[in-house]
Amino acid sequence: MTCTVDACSMEIALLGGTGDIGEGLALRWAHDTDHDIVIGSREQTKAEQKADEYRMLLNDRGIDCSIGGMDNASAADRCSIVVVSIPPQYAADTVDEIVPGLDEDTILVSPAVRMVRTDGGFNYDPPEVGSVAEEIAAAVPDHIPVVGAFQNIAAGALRNLDADLRADVVITGDDRDAKSAIESLAEEIEGLHALDGGTLSNSSAVESVTPLLINLAINNDGMHDLGVQFR
Amino acid sequence: MTCTVDACSMEIALLGGTGDIGEGLALRWAHDTDHDIVIGSREQTKAEQKADEYRMLLNDRGIDCSIGGMDNASAADRCSIVVVSIPPQYAADTVDEIVPGLDEDTILVSPAVRMVRTDGGFNYDPPEVGSVAEEIAAAVPDHIPVVGAFQNIAAGALRNLDADLRADVVITGDDRDAKSAIESLAEEIEGLHALDGGTLSNSSAVESVTPLLINLAINNDGMHDLGVQFR
Repeated sequence: MTCTVDACSMEIALLGGTGDIGEGLALRWAHDTDHDIVIGSREQTKAEQKADEYRMLLNDRGIDCSIGGMDNASAADRCSIVVVSIPPQYAADTVDEIVPGLDEDTILVSPAVRMVRTDGGFNYDPPEVGSVAEEIAAAVPDHIPVVGAFQNIAAGALRNLDADLRADVVITGDDRDAKSAIESLAEEIEGLHALDGGTLSNSSAVESVTPLLINLAINNDGMHDLGVQFR
Repeated sequence: MTCTVDACSMEIALLGGTGDIGEGLALRWAHDTDHDIVIGSREQTKAEQKADEYRMLLNDRGIDCSIGGMDNASAADRCSIVVVSIPPQYAADTVDEIVPGLDEDTILVSPAVRMVRTDGGFNYDPPEVGSVAEEIAAAVPDHIPVVGAFQNIAAGALRNLDADLRADVVITGDDRDAKSAIESLAEEIEGLHALDGGTLSNSSAVESVTPLLINLAINNDGMHDLGVQFR
């Protein structure tokens, strides 16, 4: 079979979809839903190669899917959901590039976290505005909603389709409809449970859990690819 | 029966043990272990009143226990485990007061978190040095170990002895033996599971989970007194 990017169902762009969290989300949505996935990269060729690779991996598991590859700007232009799954130091610059192509009904999703490695482990290193999610929001026009999500899902578990996920996804944002859309998308991935974390200004508390998860994996035998659950 | 503070088993001081997290830890250790509990307060009378209250509450449940009350400095002087369960803005000042009475084998435990309330919810507001735990460490001589723990346990669940706890406690610190002692004390409370969070410099990532827990409780129906589990 061949997979094509077409207009039916929801179209999700994973900017930096060649990286590990982008790959994980692409594979899970392609596996668990019928949404159209567009891998974005700085280079279209690389995006297409990765899209082919993911599609073959899914085809081998008997999964019909739609995964294409484009440069980041074209991917963002095409899709209504745009996940900024790129290294956080490049997030704001990449968003600047894609702004001209963003429609009014585009939702940006911020899964990235800025961390520094110290002697003791990993520390959260938020940008001046408080969080990567707020940094992205500051880089786009006010009418484009930004939602923080997926920061605390281990890429290793996400991209391994044989791994059972069991983790909470905290959703932050200032636009109720946008949050609701991303909440649904999160829960369409089997094993993920979405929780409302409140406003976008609460994103730093979510992002800062990620270095904690890494430190726990480093310091506790047998713990790896950790997720978090609140109860 | 009467309960007395005596020299057998471990002696745990809960500075600010009249507040909610101090009360919760006092009740749980008194209920689940045979350690001697000393409630500390700025006023000895208030500490004694609270100790009487907690002891009666436990006696009513048929639990034999040892809970006494002292002023903070005397409580810290007496005990080998000193939990600084006071509002974080007073933590460093209180530690200054108790330093003269601290022995070489005293372990200080930091469960407090600095937060600010904003329009959107609660935000983590760490002190300049990075975390309350590190602030306390900076206020005591180098040979007194400080351990971060219990920041993410809901006081409401802890103090309600009818509530089943099921939560992780992340332990941070730079002294292996001190961490190990606090890990054991945490796991002696039924339903708590201790995890190694690495060095004390990793404490901010643990403290910052607390405002997230509060925001989740505010924004999600049916969620309250939340704890966190990593897996």
